[in-house]
Amino acid sequence: MKRTSRDIRTANRYEVLRQIIAASPTSRQELAAATGLSLATVATLVGELLDLRMITEVGFEDSAGGRPRGLVAVNASGGALIGVDIAETYVHVELFDLGLNVLARAEEDVRPSESRPEQVVGHVAAVVGSVVAQAGIEGARVLGVGVSVPGQVDRATGISEYAPNWDWHDVPLLDLLTEHIAYPLYLDNPLRASAVAELWFGAARGRGDAVVVNLGTGVGSGLILGGGLHRGVSNSAGEWGHTTIVLDGRLCRCGKNGCVEAYVGASGIMLTLRESSADSPLLHPEDQTATIAALARGLAERDPVAVKVVRDTVRYLGAGIADLVNLFNPEVVVLSSWVAAALGEPLVEEVRGAVARHALPRPNAATEIVLSPIPTDPVCLGAATFALEGALQSVGQRQQKRTPSARAKAHHRQ
Amino acid sequence: MKRTSRDIRTANRYEVLRQIIAASPTSRQELAAATGLSLATVATLVGELLDLRMITEVGFEDSAGGRPRGLVAVNASGGALIGVDIAETYVHVELFDLGLNVLARAEEDVRPSESRPEQVVGHVAAVVGSVVAQAGIEGARVLGVGVSVPGQVDRATGISEYAPNWDWHDVPLLDLLTEHIAYPLYLDNPLRASAVAELWFGAARGRGDAVVVNLGTGVGSGLILGGGLHRGVSNSAGEWGHTTIVLDGRLCRCGKNGCVEAYVGASGIMLTLRESSADSPLLHPEDQTATIAALARGLAERDPVAVKVVRDTVRYLGAGIADLVNLFNPEVVVLSSWVAAALGEPLVEEVRGAVARHALPRPNAATEIVLSPIPTDPVCLGAATFALEGALQSVGQRQQKRTPSARAKAHHRQ
Repeated sequence: MKRTSRDIRTANRYEVLRQIIAASPTSRQELAAATGLSLATVATLVGELLDLRMITEVGFEDSAGGRPRGLVAVNASGGALIGVDIAETYVHVELFDLGLNVLARAEEDVRPSESRPEQVVGHVAAVVGSVVAQAGIEGARVLGVGVSVPGQVDRATGISEYAPNWDWHDVPLLDLLTEHIAYPLYLDNPLRASAVAELWFGAARGRGDAVVVNLGTGVGSGLILGGGLHRGVSNSAGEWGHTTIVLDGRLCRCGKNGCVEAYVGASGIMLTLRESSADSPLLHPEDQTATIAALARGLAERDPVAVKVVRDTVRYLGAGIADLVNLFNPEVVVLSSWVAAALGEPLVEEVRGAVARHALPRPNAATEIVLSPIPTDPVCLGAATFALEGALQSVGQRQQKRTPSARAKAHHRQ
Repeated sequence: MKRTSRDIRTANRYEVLRQIIAASPTSRQELAAATGLSLATVATLVGELLDLRMITEVGFEDSAGGRPRGLVAVNASGGALIGVDIAETYVHVELFDLGLNVLARAEEDVRPSESRPEQVVGHVAAVVGSVVAQAGIEGARVLGVGVSVPGQVDRATGISEYAPNWDWHDVPLLDLLTEHIAYPLYLDNPLRASAVAELWFGAARGRGDAVVVNLGTGVGSGLILGGGLHRGVSNSAGEWGHTTIVLDGRLCRCGKNGCVEAYVGASGIMLTLRESSADSPLLHPEDQTATIAALARGLAERDPVAVKVVRDTVRYLGAGIADLVNLFNPEVVVLSSWVAAALGEPLVEEVRGAVARHALPRPNAATEIVLSPIPTDPVCLGAATFALEGALQSVGQRQQKRTPSARAKAHHRQ
């Protein structure tokens, strides 16, 4: 999408709060230096965040010879944010304070027989209720709930256009959720949630261009370009899992052939293991998690089958990531999601070598490849961040024509 | 790269001038509406452009009931811009006025035996001198010369890191050019030049996200994201020609296997023709241009070999463009360069069908696929646009701490 002045103001507001969360307490001068914004712009944005009680004044620091500088810090108790990760087999929910510390978490399993939208929404409502109760906070303090659902999502209408795990088509998920959840809701998918988590709190913080590669049951990427999330014109950018790596190759669950996901998604890795050694004890035919865990152990023990399967996988994965390096020329590629976490540094080491063989030298030299440093569920964290961004954005819109009473109301609503 | 406030000011300056060039005469009010910038910002930027004599006041229009609105138009004779397209077999140069109308053009052939950097630079210097003489303008009015050279370019240092056509490595091209050319020089590559040409004057104008696909001897893409050129962290984004479409496939001239370029570049198409019908009269073994022209005629006449070769090529091209659609989710994909121009609408029609088969439905539905509408050499036009952007940017930097005398000097320098 084309950036308007409002987009720029919103991006600047995010950037300033991101810096404050990263380095509280901090001064307006430090924020200006860190963000590249003018001191006047920073002062305005800090004023807005103070008005919103998202941050607070916390004293002064001496500046050499000059006036003491006012310090601000995130007001952790200024509100709560909830992140919901709807996955194939579970719904995972975390409740955060404004410093994005986890105050409560809960999870429910989703059985294959319970994957109708109403059933999944029931799980979500139950778990959201549970974290609010656990945290013992007033509902009025919940600024919003970010919900991540796999597949193609229309954010504006709140429709899950296509969720490959349950073959959902055009499910009005936001409407269904609104029947059970009274907080402001923000719908998106795990690719963008984990990218935003890296941008705010992980390996993409302070980076202009980063690609966050999700390796799980599904496979895809979230794109940080020019310091912000690139969504594309219809919020479906980043579908790297369905780019072609072997024309006419393996059938993918999307119905096409030779997609990256067909080789490097958890099912693809299991198929490679089966092709390589059909009776391998590493293989747990109905259990992706157990199989990937067994591969990880095998890799650590230099088990030849495990080593071969990971090498075979990395042939595709390295070429696929090299495509991202050649196209985006990012500062960093972050490997996220559970398959990447399970296979860990040994996988990353292999990937670096394969990318160096496939990518052009100039972009390859500029790109670091790292594991996600986020210790908790990055999809929950990113979903909660969407709620934080939503709160900042809607507030910005309200403030554009604010009157004293509108401003008081905005405070009241929190 | 991360966007700073200066980048944003520069981008806004481009945007306003772009609109004025597109729709002269126009008012500040219309410019604000078209760009999404505030009237105050537009007024400041228009003031800067007036100071620079890049635009002029051209009268007033009535506004219903209000004060008459001042109209501005591009000041075509306010300066000249030169674009240089260094290609494998020729150097093509065009001189433009500030409305980006061609005032003069010249070309020299580059024989394979003359491809040393000093020889190529000699050609460039001769042709640049020729267009300035032809146009009969004073050298002092040339605001800059944009130079496009294929391959990996370090803009900051002016080094051609790698030019695949001549196997150049780390050639200090800007230094060599500076010995012969006194005007400000701006170095980049044809992928980015043609993308900027589409952004300012072609199918990407007014679009937030667009991908410009160059189909020629070399193959690659230029990326317009968030309304501006995406360069990546080391100015090498967009290397789609060297993404993998068939793992372990055809050898590419980059030394790797299975790259898009190995199938859809002019040599790749010739190889497909040779594999399909080794003694085809369409094949001109040493002449890419003649072969592609023969294929285009064959396609128009429904010659079965030509139809088959184009279909086979589009299998790869369609999958490769679908990858771009899935990753970037752009509003438009523009097919540019001489192979696309030669094969024309019949090629585009086939490509649309193939992309629809390969891309995910949601991004596919949001993307238009079109031929470049630019009637002249888009690389020359884009290179000249880099010179225009350079003039706007350096002026912006000078103006940041301008004094009356510095301002007078800035005018004088033009």
